[in-house]
Amino acid sequence: MFNKILIANRGEIAVRIIRACMEMGIKTVAIYSEADKDSLHTQMADEAICVGPAPSKDSYLNIKNIISATVLSGAEAVHPGFGFLSENSKFAQICKECNIVFIGPDSEIIDSMGNKSNARSIMIDAKVPVVPGSDGIIKDYKDAVDMAQKIGYPIMLKASAGGGGRGIRIIRHEKDLLKEFNAAKAESRVSFGDDSIYMEKYIEEPHHIEFQILADNYGNVIHIGERDCSLQRRNQKILEESPSPFLTDELRKSMGEVAIKAAKAVNYKNAGTIEFLVDKNKNFYFMEMNTRVQVEHPISEMVSNIDIIKEQIKIAFGHKLNYKQEDVNIKGHAIECRINAEDPHKKFTPSPGKIENLHVPGGMGIRFDGNVYSGYEIPHYYDSMIGKLIAYGNNREEAISRMKRALTEFIIEGVKTNIDFQLDIVNDKNFIKGIYDTSFIEKYKK
Amino acid sequence: MFNKILIANRGEIAVRIIRACMEMGIKTVAIYSEADKDSLHTQMADEAICVGPAPSKDSYLNIKNIISATVLSGAEAVHPGFGFLSENSKFAQICKECNIVFIGPDSEIIDSMGNKSNARSIMIDAKVPVVPGSDGIIKDYKDAVDMAQKIGYPIMLKASAGGGGRGIRIIRHEKDLLKEFNAAKAESRVSFGDDSIYMEKYIEEPHHIEFQILADNYGNVIHIGERDCSLQRRNQKILEESPSPFLTDELRKSMGEVAIKAAKAVNYKNAGTIEFLVDKNKNFYFMEMNTRVQVEHPISEMVSNIDIIKEQIKIAFGHKLNYKQEDVNIKGHAIECRINAEDPHKKFTPSPGKIENLHVPGGMGIRFDGNVYSGYEIPHYYDSMIGKLIAYGNNREEAISRMKRALTEFIIEGVKTNIDFQLDIVNDKNFIKGIYDTSFIEKYKK
Repeated sequence: MFNKILIANRGEIAVRIIRACMEMGIKTVAIYSEADKDSLHTQMADEAICVGPAPSKDSYLNIKNIISATVLSGAEAVHPGFGFLSENSKFAQICKECNIVFIGPDSEIIDSMGNKSNARSIMIDAKVPVVPGSDGIIKDYKDAVDMAQKIGYPIMLKASAGGGGRGIRIIRHEKDLLKEFNAAKAESRVSFGDDSIYMEKYIEEPHHIEFQILADNYGNVIHIGERDCSLQRRNQKILEESPSPFLTDELRKSMGEVAIKAAKAVNYKNAGTIEFLVDKNKNFYFMEMNTRVQVEHPISEMVSNIDIIKEQIKIAFGHKLNYKQEDVNIKGHAIECRINAEDPHKKFTPSPGKIENLHVPGGMGIRFDGNVYSGYEIPHYYDSMIGKLIAYGNNREEAISRMKRALTEFIIEGVKTNIDFQLDIVNDKNFIKGIYDTSFIEKYKK
Repeated sequence: MFNKILIANRGEIAVRIIRACMEMGIKTVAIYSEADKDSLHTQMADEAICVGPAPSKDSYLNIKNIISATVLSGAEAVHPGFGFLSENSKFAQICKECNIVFIGPDSEIIDSMGNKSNARSIMIDAKVPVVPGSDGIIKDYKDAVDMAQKIGYPIMLKASAGGGGRGIRIIRHEKDLLKEFNAAKAESRVSFGDDSIYMEKYIEEPHHIEFQILADNYGNVIHIGERDCSLQRRNQKILEESPSPFLTDELRKSMGEVAIKAAKAVNYKNAGTIEFLVDKNKNFYFMEMNTRVQVEHPISEMVSNIDIIKEQIKIAFGHKLNYKQEDVNIKGHAIECRINAEDPHKKFTPSPGKIENLHVPGGMGIRFDGNVYSGYEIPHYYDSMIGKLIAYGNNREEAISRMKRALTEFIIEGVKTNIDFQLDIVNDKNFIKGIYDTSFIEKYKK
């Protein structure tokens, strides 16, 4: 096994990876920005190397410094976590060229899935259902008009280089198309340095369901069930659960098979996620593949008892998968609430500052993956998530009751958080019935 | 279901019970002593009633005040936790007479198991193997001499009214018998108000293995596996695990069957534990039955996913058991380390005081059942346990690696704790191999 791994990330995912390494007997190297010198991940790792000033481009995205830190520390592998460089194919490629194992798929796979219209073409070839739309980028405005008529309004214009909800425009009438088409191209050029856009049918109030994939270097691919990530605010997930209350067993089975087919179509390696949109009639469409671990991976761990981070490391080292699909036994129910330092009364704007008092809930069925402690000063440079509260139960009802209980116990003083907002969600009678889609939060009267 | 339950206890078990009630939608009433007004259990319950000054006899053992608090608050049931009044048959009886449900067995069962020589007679009649010894109390010194010769030295003299390691004397040679016999009777009279003593063969370096029983009011009895509680210091358990690394599957099966037979022999109701001694040749003997929930119950919960506290409440309300023996699926491995505020360098004397800084470990497979928070002042009146750290893994190796990792993360400042001592245990190469018995800690060189 690896002797030492560098974690090219910060916050709770860095802590999560350090924990897995500690349990595997692997030494860890943390990197940190000047703003993160007192961070939990910096303190927990065996070594910690400052890679630059606070802005991410100068530290957590600073490939040169990160590679130097890896070489200097003698780490044999880099775990990129999520965000930052996790889906940067150039970084994966440079690691390879420096004889550093990148814990994730090869740069070619990151590239092919990172370009959304390319990913779509691959999936069409593999007979994976995709949302009706332009097969490839739209040539010009006339092409856009023809395509929209064929697909039928409402449609979406999406930046090829986008992802994670960024670079998306919804158009409901032809009269708006010209203006939005030009704006989308301009925005895409500015945001992503690439003005290619493509078109898809806009599925109203869909369910966002994703399948967790594990694939080794020898062609073995399994999924460990789905996560329902439909509870979003402005395309940011805020609560996820596994299994999804919306899927039938039959649909679950066929989506799982399609997810594996999709992963195999790109010769996928390591952990990844196939994201689907599911409409109200339970038709499902491939949306995108995330070529990294996801924020919400713990709920899949809870229902399967498979430690996804450890599996990532073992796969990257060259181990064969320990599990066949029939060994994956999904049991019980898990819910994750993202705990963000943000102010629900100020449109959920981030609320950085010093945590004066912290009391994390515990007890049966409760897991907390966080990067905070009493006295920790949350820097304003990074995203507002400070931890993930995960509740497990023998069934959905028990998981919800544990989550309610744990949210009630949670005390964070000094900064504003979304804990009460999460409590409102888990107390909502439609949520309790399992009736929700991606429009739930938007419609939610606060 | 009950509308409101009073918890006649303090500390982490009171918090544990409150959590279960919150998840079941049951209102809770905490009781507290004057020293515990800032305790977590006092803060977490829906209501909290002071039942007297700090010394337990004036508050947590003050039956009159506790019954008054129950009646006043309108609670329909009392959960006694462990220790304090949990095995006090008089309290169970008074509850019954006041139309308050005592969450535990009937007072008659508590009585029959509380008297150790009586319990032994019942087990002999039920063909449950017991340690060779006097069948009933010893009449006089001559009787003791004859008996000891028959059984063979070393022997133990035990107070009938004792339990939990109290009131035990080991005699290795006949020359010591007279002195110890008289001393044992005198001590028993002073400590328990009853000088009846009985004799047992002393099993050297035995394993302490206990089976968790659940029994409803309709004669259904199941066990949910065993716990190995051999790691003790002066008869106080400090680390427990489930399953036991010492048992074979065959032995586990037959001991489980005997445990159920033992529980049925007394028409047992609610949660209870059958404790066995197992010698190095894997002969097992009934030691005693604990007619309450145990400190170490969480490890059984982790490997079975059965919430023992919820089951206790449901059984007491009159529900039938949800589980048949064949539904109990023991999976994975769990270890519990008791976290005590005590000074390992001063013979583990209690170290009360203010917790200046607290950082509780989290992440996959880690559960913490505690009653502490940053700024909490541990009173000196009660036992030194401030929480239980529980690690779960797919197998023993993973559970140990998680426990090591979590103990390493744990930060408690302001009071001394046994965390480093626990780390030494889980790093010990014999412990890692699963080779230990009740003499482990004593032999352990620090």
